[in-house]
Amino acid sequence: MRLDVVTIFPEYLDPLNVSLVGKARTRGQLDVHVHDLRSWTYDRHNTVDDTPYGGGPGMVMKTEPWGDALDSVLADGYETGARRPALIVPTPSGHPFTQTLAVELSERPWLVFTPARYEGIDRRVIDEYATRMPVYEVSIGDYVLAGGEAAVLVITEAVARLLPGVLGNAASHQDDSFAPGAMANLLEGPVYTKPPEWRGRDIPDVLLSGHHGRIARWRRDEALRRTTANRPDLIERCDPKAFDKKDREMLSILGWAPDPEGEPHGRFWRRLEGVEQ
Amino acid sequence: MRLDVVTIFPEYLDPLNVSLVGKARTRGQLDVHVHDLRSWTYDRHNTVDDTPYGGGPGMVMKTEPWGDALDSVLADGYETGARRPALIVPTPSGHPFTQTLAVELSERPWLVFTPARYEGIDRRVIDEYATRMPVYEVSIGDYVLAGGEAAVLVITEAVARLLPGVLGNAASHQDDSFAPGAMANLLEGPVYTKPPEWRGRDIPDVLLSGHHGRIARWRRDEALRRTTANRPDLIERCDPKAFDKKDREMLSILGWAPDPEGEPHGRFWRRLEGVEQ
Repeated sequence: MRLDVVTIFPEYLDPLNVSLVGKARTRGQLDVHVHDLRSWTYDRHNTVDDTPYGGGPGMVMKTEPWGDALDSVLADGYETGARRPALIVPTPSGHPFTQTLAVELSERPWLVFTPARYEGIDRRVIDEYATRMPVYEVSIGDYVLAGGEAAVLVITEAVARLLPGVLGNAASHQDDSFAPGAMANLLEGPVYTKPPEWRGRDIPDVLLSGHHGRIARWRRDEALRRTTANRPDLIERCDPKAFDKKDREMLSILGWAPDPEGEPHGRFWRRLEGVEQ
Repeated sequence: MRLDVVTIFPEYLDPLNVSLVGKARTRGQLDVHVHDLRSWTYDRHNTVDDTPYGGGPGMVMKTEPWGDALDSVLADGYETGARRPALIVPTPSGHPFTQTLAVELSERPWLVFTPARYEGIDRRVIDEYATRMPVYEVSIGDYVLAGGEAAVLVITEAVARLLPGVLGNAASHQDDSFAPGAMANLLEGPVYTKPPEWRGRDIPDVLLSGHHGRIARWRRDEALRRTTANRPDLIERCDPKAFDKKDREMLSILGWAPDPEGEPHGRFWRRLEGVEQ
């Protein structure tokens, strides 16, 4: 997979040399190119921004440097054999970036990222490249960053770990929170390792029982417990068919019941009033 | 504000020297300390992980290095006058990190981050420090990273830009997507700057009209357009009182109507079937 990033803070992308992504580069699984947007400015001050049309606070990134940069980056990629680029535009106004989207992006051969600063990039840049390639405007969450660079690190890491051979142990994917399959929509519960006692704290007995069925059940119960506590929104949307009899018992203990009224709205479960959490 | 980060990849945090956070450090608004967890290992291999109790794939980060590291980091902070630490634990199993939480964290004097790798940190570490200070287990989004370091960069940046004096122009906050106030729950629409024509693409005429009321209305309509397209979940939850007559007309054009059935469930709006989007 080829990755290009155009930014006014190239050094912010240095973590792409570290850890999982860094190793994937060394192994040749990822071909990463970070470009300084200011290389495509031709005035003395290397201007990349100007005031917004229509007034208001903040600055807007200009069309010309972005257009020249993207043309040049795309030409270079095509020349070296890259094909089917997609433009990834991190913005708080985008579609939510999810694990499903990470999987979709991990199947593409070439991603070009345009992390912006200030109030964002002049809209015409996105409109222009949308005529030539798929554009993903994505938001990594409901908070505001100073720029898109941190989002690029997040998206790159989420995508890179899904590439074949990048994670040492492929089995590690299967129990991921948000992974498709058995644990869909449930958060992972607590984990423990040696020693069995630390500062007066023991691990749960069941984990020493050697009884696989009981351990699996305990993990499932803890996943339900954590999800109802931290992400009631995920439980609400869980398909009732995803839960067996023991799951339902645990949900009942945790104060949750099927929501026949909410079902037409995609809300299958609701928290009961007055149940001790 | 004091920030401590304990990690096995200290170099991943190098972006804390760059841009907004880097400048806030230079100005003395942020006191950042990045620590290598392996400094608190005492075996030849600097071991920080071991196999999970109860079996299963992946590795779990051990109690001892984390406990020794946190004790040392906390002692150092207290010695230099820091007070009221809070532990920030990035994990996909946590509460969602939102702009509201960013504001809450920006009011605290000292944040200690514990970005984990592998399957996470032995639960007893969190349980132990939760007896001494507030612990925020937070998830920056519904996707899986290779480790918590990218999440630390995201949280740090979202928090730092809210500190007094860190952003040049305080007015920039007010129009943020997800900011409290007029634009609450609406995404920002497109932005434009000079030149008025680029590669045959003009800016919208209204932005050259000089008519503040019409420009504000256009921006509001574009915000509604983008939010219904990219984040129907946000529109659904919008309080009807937040919308004026013109907003309602625009929502109607976009194919949305009040949802009397959904109202008890906190869904105030629904998309109508069969309306051309």
